[in-house]
Amino acid sequence: MPATSLPPRRPIITLLTDFGTSDGYVGAMKGAILSIQPEAEIVDISHDIPAHDVRAGAFVLKTTYRFYPRGTIHVAIVDPGVGGERLPVLLVTPDHFFIGPDNGIFSWIVRAEEVRDCRALTAAHYMRESVSQTFHGRDIFGPAAAWLARGAAKEGFGEPVGSLRTFGLPETIVSEKTFRTEVIHVDRFGNCVLGTTRDELERAVGAVPPQLQASVKGVVVTGLRETYDGGPSGAPFFLFGSTGHLEIAAHRASAAGLTRLARGDSVDVSF
Amino acid sequence: MPATSLPPRRPIITLLTDFGTSDGYVGAMKGAILSIQPEAEIVDISHDIPAHDVRAGAFVLKTTYRFYPRGTIHVAIVDPGVGGERLPVLLVTPDHFFIGPDNGIFSWIVRAEEVRDCRALTAAHYMRESVSQTFHGRDIFGPAAAWLARGAAKEGFGEPVGSLRTFGLPETIVSEKTFRTEVIHVDRFGNCVLGTTRDELERAVGAVPPQLQASVKGVVVTGLRETYDGGPSGAPFFLFGSTGHLEIAAHRASAAGLTRLARGDSVDVSF
Amino acid sequence: MPATSLPPRRPIITLLTDFGTSDGYVGAMKGAILSIQPEAEIVDISHDIPAHDVRAGAFVLKTTYRFYPRGTIHVAIVDPGVGGERLPVLLVTPDHFFIGPDNGIFSWIVRAEEVRDCRALTAAHYMRESVSQTFHGRDIFGPAAAWLARGAAKEGFGEPVGSLRTFGLPETIVSEKTFRTEVIHVDRFGNCVLGTTRDELERAVGAVPPQLQASVKGVVVTGLRETYDGGPSGAPFFLFGSTGHLEIAAHRASAAGLTRLARGDSVDVSF
Repeated sequence: MPATSLPPRRPIITLLTDFGTSDGYVGAMKGAILSIQPEAEIVDISHDIPAHDVRAGAFVLKTTYRFYPRGTIHVAIVDPGVGGERLPVLLVTPDHFFIGPDNGIFSWIVRAEEVRDCRALTAAHYMRESVSQTFHGRDIFGPAAAWLARGAAKEGFGEPVGSLRTFGLPETIVSEKTFRTEVIHVDRFGNCVLGTTRDELERAVGAVPPQLQASVKGVVVTGLRETYDGGPSGAPFFLFGSTGHLEIAAHRASAAGLTRLARGDSVDVSF
Repeated sequence: MPATSLPPRRPIITLLTDFGTSDGYVGAMKGAILSIQPEAEIVDISHDIPAHDVRAGAFVLKTTYRFYPRGTIHVAIVDPGVGGERLPVLLVTPDHFFIGPDNGIFSWIVRAEEVRDCRALTAAHYMRESVSQTFHGRDIFGPAAAWLARGAAKEGFGEPVGSLRTFGLPETIVSEKTFRTEVIHVDRFGNCVLGTTRDELERAVGAVPPQLQASVKGVVVTGLRETYDGGPSGAPFFLFGSTGHLEIAAHRASAAGLTRLARGDSVDVSF
Repeated sequence: MPATSLPPRRPIITLLTDFGTSDGYVGAMKGAILSIQPEAEIVDISHDIPAHDVRAGAFVLKTTYRFYPRGTIHVAIVDPGVGGERLPVLLVTPDHFFIGPDNGIFSWIVRAEEVRDCRALTAAHYMRESVSQTFHGRDIFGPAAAWLARGAAKEGFGEPVGSLRTFGLPETIVSEKTFRTEVIHVDRFGNCVLGTTRDELERAVGAVPPQLQASVKGVVVTGLRETYDGGPSGAPFFLFGSTGHLEIAAHRASAAGLTRLARGDSVDVSF
């Protein structure tokens, strides 16, 4: 690129939630942030994570955070246990900050990044004066992001946390001429994202196999293509998507619709 | 909190509409605002208010506006009567400005806030040159917000308006050991927000009763919990939500689904 | 208006896509933009264009771009052929920049605006280091918009492109006392936008006829009203909407629901 990137003059706070956009939850949280740090550049990642679906939120976070400038504060809230025992936490990695509940939503971050510091968000002076038991986005997470964006030191938010809760991430089990993987996400186009990445497959098999095939629920998935466009209509194929993960896709059609695959389904791929 | 809030350097304009996000309406309105005041910080509250549902818009506005910094301009447009007799108005309260149609959307604001000034938006020089009869968001409301954000004096927008239209807000009718309330909102998680607030109940009964119970459409709602999480699965309970209102909720399930409650339904609660 | 508009101090980049808001695609693209030009003011036009629906995206772009300040950069991506032969392009008109795939999405722009320059986006130094075959929004279009917003000269993005692909725009065929038009968009309220504009009709017929009537799928559409509000319930009528196009609408009801009209349907209107 012609020059190095410009450092942001305004602190960037990204928001990723399952709050939906027909209630006032997102609006109230944005107001709580702007009341503390009106210079914050608030960026909506998504508010349409399926309700209570921590794994979906974790995957969307994994596919977005690293494209943001150094110093970005990522707020990720899919929090069915709000007000219960799970801790609100701040995670510090070499390039980013992450704020949200300690319920597994940072599982991919913990695997991919060096965690330099992790704090429980317990300091009352960085919360709203009156903290509800049901809306920590507005009362704890949003304000913490805003104070951090105003320059508050991470040590002031609470005590260090030893380790974070994570859920089991998908594993690729390789046999002689097959591997078993699983559907970890279905996107709005119906592409079925699998747990297996290109890197993983190269390490396990030595190279990306030229040919892949699977039979899922009676539907044959065959071929490894480079683009979504092309190929016979109605015939699902494999492709390495923009996230680095293997996908089952289809030419201008929903692969999920064609195969009836859903998240969590196992897929045995022969190569 | 460690320090007083910073005053915003950029004027904040929030948008709350029923325009949806698949047409160009929101985009055109944002353009109209930025063409007049490019420094405005536009914040989306919601564009997914159900079409024509003034009461839903009014409730979402009520639950968000007060979290914004002093001086914020709130544009609220759910406007089935656009182009008809209802006036476009500007409302001034001690801390905020509100812009939208005079059709009841400010009912909760008028009840909660001191209205210092109220103007009809009739001054043509603060509208787009050509004003459509069907899209005042782009042609009247957005431009008014932008001019206000550029510092235009409120007196210049039009003549004072004596009183605003309001719809009847929900009332809690208390008998000896029961009260009657109604569902005023169902959120995306299926929580059924009731008209009764914690304050109201404390005033009426002397204290929040330790136990609440109701039978709605054959389903028993029992218990007053502090968090959404916990309790037997499939058994709806009561909870004071983050808006201060009593809600009927359920552990990781939709209370609206379990009870078939919808907005407007009456609920008799015994305590 | 009281004064001329202020020039934006921050470059404005609008986004119009069919990415939806439940995956990480929009978030990743915004990050890619802000990593290059953190001062960009990113404005969401829509991410809810129906998947792969280039015509819908083209129409929403047509109804929004001209309301933005001079110099705004419009990124429009509905791109079923991503990674294939269609070129990524930059279009320069007197007041705006447009970035997206050359697949017809700029059909209305090309018809309405003087195209001063058009470039293929082929310069690798304005792309992300590693360019996927499936996500040019993040890897080519977003970065191009960001570099343009940092002041990069348009000549540096690639070679000139002679002409752009366009799809056939709707035509109004006028006979003695009727004209034939078609539904080009159905909005979230169920209003059916027709291909015919007020200007077109005035030119063809000499003036806007005082009375219009059609029979569509057995339902009579009659009357030319000025506002959506009013008229007998359940009886669809004609109206010139805020886009300048003739619409079939209904009083607080979905005209599309009443008439079962869908995009592409022909309508014969007698006057």
